[in-house]
Amino acid sequence: MGITIASAVEDAYQQLGGEKKLAFFNLLFEEFSFDSERVRMAIEEFQSSPKLGTSHRLHKATETARIELFRRINIAPKGTETLVRMRADLLLLLKENPHLNEVDADIRYLMDSWFNRGFLKLVEIDWHTPAHILEKLMNYEAVHSMNGWEDLRRRLAADRRCYAFFHPTMQDEPIIFVQVALCRGLADSVQELLNMPEQKELDTQANTAIFYSISDCQRGLKGISLGNFLIKQVVMELRGELPNITQFATLSPIPGFSSWIRKEIESGNITGAKGQLGKSFLAKNELNDSVVSDQDEVDILKLCAEYLYLAKKDEEPKDPVARFHLRNGASIKRLNWAGDTSSKGERQSFGIMVNYHYDLSRVEERHEAFVNGKEISIDTEFSRQLM
Amino acid sequence: MGITIASAVEDAYQQLGGEKKLAFFNLLFEEFSFDSERVRMAIEEFQSSPKLGTSHRLHKATETARIELFRRINIAPKGTETLVRMRADLLLLLKENPHLNEVDADIRYLMDSWFNRGFLKLVEIDWHTPAHILEKLMNYEAVHSMNGWEDLRRRLAADRRCYAFFHPTMQDEPIIFVQVALCRGLADSVQELLNMPEQKELDTQANTAIFYSISDCQRGLKGISLGNFLIKQVVMELRGELPNITQFATLSPIPGFSSWIRKEIESGNITGAKGQLGKSFLAKNELNDSVVSDQDEVDILKLCAEYLYLAKKDEEPKDPVARFHLRNGASIKRLNWAGDTSSKGERQSFGIMVNYHYDLSRVEERHEAFVNGKEISIDTEFSRQLM
Amino acid sequence: MGITIASAVEDAYQQLGGEKKLAFFNLLFEEFSFDSERVRMAIEEFQSSPKLGTSHRLHKATETARIELFRRINIAPKGTETLVRMRADLLLLLKENPHLNEVDADIRYLMDSWFNRGFLKLVEIDWHTPAHILEKLMNYEAVHSMNGWEDLRRRLAADRRCYAFFHPTMQDEPIIFVQVALCRGLADSVQELLNMPEQKELDTQANTAIFYSISDCQRGLKGISLGNFLIKQVVMELRGELPNITQFATLSPIPGFSSWIRKEIESGNITGAKGQLGKSFLAKNELNDSVVSDQDEVDILKLCAEYLYLAKKDEEPKDPVARFHLRNGASIKRLNWAGDTSSKGERQSFGIMVNYHYDLSRVEERHEAFVNGKEISIDTEFSRQLM
Amino acid sequence: MGITIASAVEDAYQQLGGEKKLAFFNLLFEEFSFDSERVRMAIEEFQSSPKLGTSHRLHKATETARIELFRRINIAPKGTETLVRMRADLLLLLKENPHLNEVDADIRYLMDSWFNRGFLKLVEIDWHTPAHILEKLMNYEAVHSMNGWEDLRRRLAADRRCYAFFHPTMQDEPIIFVQVALCRGLADSVQELLNMPEQKELDTQANTAIFYSISDCQRGLKGISLGNFLIKQVVMELRGELPNITQFATLSPIPGFSSWIRKEIESGNITGAKGQLGKSFLAKNELNDSVVSDQDEVDILKLCAEYLYLAKKDEEPKDPVARFHLRNGASIKRLNWAGDTSSKGERQSFGIMVNYHYDLSRVEERHEAFVNGKEISIDTEFSRQLM
Repeated sequence: MGITIASAVEDAYQQLGGEKKLAFFNLLFEEFSFDSERVRMAIEEFQSSPKLGTSHRLHKATETARIELFRRINIAPKGTETLVRMRADLLLLLKENPHLNEVDADIRYLMDSWFNRGFLKLVEIDWHTPAHILEKLMNYEAVHSMNGWEDLRRRLAADRRCYAFFHPTMQDEPIIFVQVALCRGLADSVQELLNMPEQKELDTQANTAIFYSISDCQRGLKGISLGNFLIKQVVMELRGELPNITQFATLSPIPGFSSWIRKEIESGNITGAKGQLGKSFLAKNELNDSVVSDQDEVDILKLCAEYLYLAKKDEEPKDPVARFHLRNGASIKRLNWAGDTSSKGERQSFGIMVNYHYDLSRVEERHEAFVNGKEISIDTEFSRQLM
Repeated sequence: MGITIASAVEDAYQQLGGEKKLAFFNLLFEEFSFDSERVRMAIEEFQSSPKLGTSHRLHKATETARIELFRRINIAPKGTETLVRMRADLLLLLKENPHLNEVDADIRYLMDSWFNRGFLKLVEIDWHTPAHILEKLMNYEAVHSMNGWEDLRRRLAADRRCYAFFHPTMQDEPIIFVQVALCRGLADSVQELLNMPEQKELDTQANTAIFYSISDCQRGLKGISLGNFLIKQVVMELRGELPNITQFATLSPIPGFSSWIRKEIESGNITGAKGQLGKSFLAKNELNDSVVSDQDEVDILKLCAEYLYLAKKDEEPKDPVARFHLRNGASIKRLNWAGDTSSKGERQSFGIMVNYHYDLSRVEERHEAFVNGKEISIDTEFSRQLM
Repeated sequence: MGITIASAVEDAYQQLGGEKKLAFFNLLFEEFSFDSERVRMAIEEFQSSPKLGTSHRLHKATETARIELFRRINIAPKGTETLVRMRADLLLLLKENPHLNEVDADIRYLMDSWFNRGFLKLVEIDWHTPAHILEKLMNYEAVHSMNGWEDLRRRLAADRRCYAFFHPTMQDEPIIFVQVALCRGLADSVQELLNMPEQKELDTQANTAIFYSISDCQRGLKGISLGNFLIKQVVMELRGELPNITQFATLSPIPGFSSWIRKEIESGNITGAKGQLGKSFLAKNELNDSVVSDQDEVDILKLCAEYLYLAKKDEEPKDPVARFHLRNGASIKRLNWAGDTSSKGERQSFGIMVNYHYDLSRVEERHEAFVNGKEISIDTEFSRQLM
Repeated sequence: MGITIASAVEDAYQQLGGEKKLAFFNLLFEEFSFDSERVRMAIEEFQSSPKLGTSHRLHKATETARIELFRRINIAPKGTETLVRMRADLLLLLKENPHLNEVDADIRYLMDSWFNRGFLKLVEIDWHTPAHILEKLMNYEAVHSMNGWEDLRRRLAADRRCYAFFHPTMQDEPIIFVQVALCRGLADSVQELLNMPEQKELDTQANTAIFYSISDCQRGLKGISLGNFLIKQVVMELRGELPNITQFATLSPIPGFSSWIRKEIESGNITGAKGQLGKSFLAKNELNDSVVSDQDEVDILKLCAEYLYLAKKDEEPKDPVARFHLRNGASIKRLNWAGDTSSKGERQSFGIMVNYHYDLSRVEERHEAFVNGKEISIDTEFSRQLM
């Protein structure tokens, strides 16, 4: 199939309505799979001489025809973008069409190769960035949504930084971006950060970079993990540009806390005083009631610390954000009461937020300890909140 | 393995001397292969249920550990360049270490993915191009070598064009480039083309683009075929920029002609008058004698036409340049006596050159006919030379 | 005075409060003037030999010391911007300090030289333009103000164009910009233009470019006329890019019409039926009453045509916008009833707008006729409205 | 005169042959001068009221019509370049046509305004610079000529720097450029500098920047002095980029030394032992004899020191290079025996070269002392050579 035909497939796909898309993916599933006979023969050959080329031929034989098709599409102008959009469509269909996971595995296999970090370019985003890119960032912001251009401009002022990864074939489409606040010491409230008046110059005493939002931009790249690289490269950039910034941490949501409590109570794993506490907070959320006694605050923080530190799934923390940062080599630094008082923040975690700490001298070692030994690093402050 | 370690491997490799490199590749061969036990289990699983994921797992299991290692190296700064250089080193070792073909297959597999045409950028090269790029092109020119900057400048004048593909991770390294002369009608002599005095403006009656040189730049990308895409995109560019240019053709060497004659005579396949003719031309080459009778000229051209049209290897033309252009969808247009009178030209093909014709309206169809039916398209002029 | 001192002056000026600025300009007036004695001597010398160098020396002698000071300031980083801001401040002081006109004449003399068209760069503005530039354009739009980013984006859509001049020393500051709508035939209502829904693609039948807004951006460059060059170069650009666009015209305000009527009535120059008509329209404006009979519409249009064509100041049209376009070589094409129904439009000209026509084949000739013979070119439609 | 006519003048001028150019400039002299009657009236007006506007009008009246013509030409595309070329032609005619100095004064007056430092852009030149710019630099190098591309590349290696000023209207034409060598301590021989083998990396112990060549590129900008600004800005750049570089000096020719000696001997100002010494060195030059006794070396260096320090023209040093650097605020650091052993170096100054020292903490003060008090700053080493 030449580039002309690839372009034709691409154009045709763009025109397809929703139902036709399902038909298209089913066609890919059924007609563009591997050749069983060829695989069978390659297995035989491999088994008779399990070395020198036979494994390669077996590897090749188990590659589906879809993969070659996707490669061809990628060659056409805008091909990469088309494939990213194609996968975004496909992901929506997986739940009801689990067999299409096979198709997804193939397309994702290629994307892992094409969107590897070596091909991505870090771009600093500021008020000099072209408007159409800024407009996209506003739409893609997934953590703390933006209210129009004024809000965006504040997030690009002298005491803020924003960085995005771009791929060479998609120059007008950010892949992932992170927002950073430069301040004195750790931030403990995201509303404070966001509502702080715009500063014309960077505070010369700013010593901490707070990563307060990191958003994937392309649904079609789901699972292609680039956040790790983005955070680390941004840390490098900031250290080079601003030697006074010596502490790097996040101000992060705890998205799974309240639903974890609910389930644990329902399943009888949390009972007694803790159960009462959990129930009262869940009820407060419903009643939109925010009066909390000091003791309750201490107790719920402790319960939240337990959630982050002890609640596990496949040996790793249940909380997805915790999992992400701990795997990157961060430690849990501190829980912050009333860190996010938005309705989303209250609903997810009764407003509690957490700082993860990126201690550069220990990041590699902690990453290894987490990945290999499932060890969670915590700092003194958090360990007190846990006790 | 993190990016830090990848950088370390990269640095270490750069320091290795010749012998150590062989050791390094042997290590890759022995210790970074696939896991036989894992493959065995994946085969079993596949055989018991040859669908839904099991083929994927088999595919994954037959992927070597080297592949993951190369992916990690690619992430480090300058990683792609390092891998290209690594493969250039590896290729030199293959002849004496055929087992390393396994390692090469893996690295090449990744390069096929990373250097796909969708990621390459076409750049027009002219006298405004940065000097370090021009210097590299001079060194990489493989077909008609350049004698310094004056020669280069002539090849970038108003009646010439030059285009190169670049990869986003190797901004200072051209991948492949092509040189084009714009003239009235087909060119029949490369010396005439190269020695024509520099023109300040393009002849308004120029109607033909002659592709007279196409050179791969990176030994480490051997076998990653991009010339096809380069020629086609350059044709598009020229059509857009210069509507008067309506004919696209090459002026190409015939690298295998004289050695083919020698072998055919030696093996008794060419005898009689033809054999005498061949011998006399081979002798002329040795004596550096260039007097040729008109009849001999006609006869040797006919023999050359037979070589291009009839001499085959695996059903395709024996001549590698013919194979390349015919597969791209070109036709054989015309043989040119005294087309390349350099010693290289005389040695390869007694000075004969050939024009391949890219007729845009038929290129796809001819490509299909060649690939599927092994059909060679020829034009009237060539068919007369063949008779 | 070296560059260091120039920088110091620049910094010092930036710090000055309002009153101090007046003192600064007074100092320039008093202490940085010309040297009377030197002028006297140069006059003597010139009078004794009115050629060869003496006129130059007289020219030099009558140059003020301010001019040299401004030149030095211009050399400092951001010097040009400082001078532009300085003159913006100065202009505000002229009315109450007419002697400072001398200072202004000097600074303006230099700006005429520095902001000559040869040094300006035309830049197309679109949604890919950096946000900080777009933000400035929104603020500088003087004719039809913009309501935020959505409004701006609409003015940069596929059926619109926007171009600005930039000066090499002020890369973040547009000097002047023009907004263009591409449509079928002449536009007759600016509200229609502005409220037309955003189009994704340019109407292939669009044949007319309407210049509907042209705004100077720098108060400090008042009187440095660049609009003429901007319009002409934009016409060239559009002709090159869009061969289907063959008609170039404006949709312009008539800022002086209603105040001219008021004065003419007050001074007894307009009486009788015309006077009644004028009074009734002036009253309508006050009452915010827009019901107009067909006959009244015809009559007020005729009066407006007389204003544009006959009302003069120093032999040229009284209306400043008319003067600008006619001097550029345009003709008056047509008056449009209810062309601008905004309160500003009603107040200035009872909502009437006018199209000036740039007929490229006649623009030079009309320009000469206007400048030398004070001739006003009009098209057939307007001549009917005038009768 | 509109831009169309300006373009026409420009085109016409380009076509003119040598003699026609003289006629063109004579026309400018005769027909585009000032209006005597208008000047006479402006003088009268000024004399009756020597303030408020009348000086401006006198200033304006003494401006020639040529100036307006040049301004118009400047507006046309490539206008600035045309004027620069025009003046280059004009300068060649001045000697035989001294009346054309009047025309030159006008064109130079404008160039002083247009080529002021505020409009120029500093560009670092290296091996990544476009080839057509590098080719021009090779041609423009006036001090130590380059032998082709290899020589150029050596001057752009890791231990060298090169910077040029560009004007926004002449993007392909450097205005002036300077070449710098980074080394340990003061350089004392230009041949050593130029022949030193190419270095891949900058010596980490390099502490001195030697400005060894500064060349004006545009004959048509003769007398527009930019070297001063170029040296100072390059010093700033180097200090920012390379904090280890703490000493800034030149290695400069002494172009007037030997011809000064000849004249002084001829006119009887140098006699006795000094006269003998001078004669012997002048004779050596003729005989191409370079054997010099140690005492003669010391003595001729002393005489050279006297030349630089004591020989004056209009109160400033006779030597043009000395005048240039001393006015910039440099001091005389040291004479170097056998600093330039090329035939040009021997001829000009018996091979002696001099280092001028730019001591940043004293440059302003020394500049003032030189300009106002004609004081020449010297360093200890030079003062010893002078004694």
